[in-house]
Amino acid sequence: MDIGLLLKQLHQGDPRSVARAISLVEDRSEVAAALMMGLQQERFDQALVVGITGPPGAGKSTLTNALVRCLREQEQRVGIIAIDPSSPLTHGALLGDRIRMMDHALDRDVVVRSMATRGRLGGLCAAAGAAIRIMAASGCRILFIETVGVGQSEMDVAFLADVSVMVLAPGFGDDIQAMKAGILEVVDLLVINKADQPGAKKLLLDLGTETANSDRLLQTVASEQQGIAELLTRILSMEEVFRKDAQFMARRKRSRSRETLDRVMELLRDRLRELVREEADNQLEPGAAAAGIVARIMGD
Amino acid sequence: MDIGLLLKQLHQGDPRSVARAISLVEDRSEVAAALMMGLQQERFDQALVVGITGPPGAGKSTLTNALVRCLREQEQRVGIIAIDPSSPLTHGALLGDRIRMMDHALDRDVVVRSMATRGRLGGLCAAAGAAIRIMAASGCRILFIETVGVGQSEMDVAFLADVSVMVLAPGFGDDIQAMKAGILEVVDLLVINKADQPGAKKLLLDLGTETANSDRLLQTVASEQQGIAELLTRILSMEEVFRKDAQFMARRKRSRSRETLDRVMELLRDRLRELVREEADNQLEPGAAAAGIVARIMGD
Repeated sequence: MDIGLLLKQLHQGDPRSVARAISLVEDRSEVAAALMMGLQQERFDQALVVGITGPPGAGKSTLTNALVRCLREQEQRVGIIAIDPSSPLTHGALLGDRIRMMDHALDRDVVVRSMATRGRLGGLCAAAGAAIRIMAASGCRILFIETVGVGQSEMDVAFLADVSVMVLAPGFGDDIQAMKAGILEVVDLLVINKADQPGAKKLLLDLGTETANSDRLLQTVASEQQGIAELLTRILSMEEVFRKDAQFMARRKRSRSRETLDRVMELLRDRLRELVREEADNQLEPGAAAAGIVARIMGD
Repeated sequence: MDIGLLLKQLHQGDPRSVARAISLVEDRSEVAAALMMGLQQERFDQALVVGITGPPGAGKSTLTNALVRCLREQEQRVGIIAIDPSSPLTHGALLGDRIRMMDHALDRDVVVRSMATRGRLGGLCAAAGAAIRIMAASGCRILFIETVGVGQSEMDVAFLADVSVMVLAPGFGDDIQAMKAGILEVVDLLVINKADQPGAKKLLLDLGTETANSDRLLQTVASEQQGIAELLTRILSMEEVFRKDAQFMARRKRSRSRETLDRVMELLRDRLRELVREEADNQLEPGAAAAGIVARIMGD
């Protein structure tokens, strides 16, 4: 494979090159390292990573779609990474590229990638991180990373975002009660989507006065494009604020560190699997066996 | 802490000692290793670990409850480990010990433990494995490990089971379509719960002739205790078959190996976090940084 050519096409924005590059990293190809080192780092530095999270059914995909529409009107190139909690039954993602982002299917400046959580022991954060860098290098100014906040691996990916958005919608009942306190301590922006629905008022009440009155709470009807331009403006002004002080770099450093640790664990898991399997013959209690293996590796 | 006393009370079946012992392991107390080494291994060898998995709403808890009722009539001591996919919003488990197993709340021979997946980077398999050993040592003959098949970490735990049961119910629509093929290749028994509901016939049709006619498919109405005694008999006769040939030991070895690897990764992650954080100052691309760290550790 000609990595030089792939990098050239990728930097020119060719969508198929983006897809091929991400696959090389996901499949842990031998050329992945050279590929990643060849990416134009400045583009990643200039890009903004927006995390979109929330419970299933809140309308995350519709909202992302609506934000993408807004950005496309401004002729911005956009990347989307959708983390799908995988079905244990189908061995695949619940939603795939197929049905996602139908609106933008023919637009070569909307780059989409779905990643399934199934079959990954760690590694999701590393793979998503690499996909972000690749998409950014291909010229995407804004990158959305959309995760259903269900499992741990999905949540980990949220660490990769520069600005995080939590999407809620009316009708999730008492689950909301438990999170009244301090939701804005964990995310940057809170969006009440489907704000035209009857339960929206109650949801706002449930969130408590402080949250409901915060300028970090927005209301949208994503399916009607309502409130989306305002949300985008808010995201971008937040970026501006973060970039002015040390916050932006601090977040990037934290996510780089997370990505690196994730990748280290992935590499070590591969290398240690055989060693551990041999150890299992010794009938040792797993905790004791593990302590012995770690002591040997770390040279204690 | 007097580990000798704790072990004595635990082996006598004291439920509070079981809870304390599991907490020591979960909190990674310094005495955890001594505790685990002091457990009566024979009891774990004689115990049967039954995995109950399936989509949310299929009735896993009700089914487990019904099986427990059956076993309690036979005066068997039972343990239940419930893996809850955690809510990212509440920082806790969706369901807790509180509302689980209300039926058996006052029965000291039904030991229940919920484990949340949130906040664990790996480690769930190790913690659940330890809980199984502790409960078995306290005299539980049958151990249920109940997981919602959603995220990867939940699925990993399924590896700990000697006999695995997948629970489905009518009304899950087209999701079923995708898994028609080969569901019995991944689990030992398939249960159609809520078999009295209108959609049950269609579900059977969807599963295909081969699956529907298999003697590893059972139908239950767990809420009415229907089909539960048959299911239990089937589980126990499966155990008998597995124990006669090499399968039982092979599965146990596989799960011990999985538990050990999980524990190794947990220990290494703790020890490497600081090292990785320092590395993040070097602004290296994460893949390159990770490769360097791993080479250093493994002495390449």
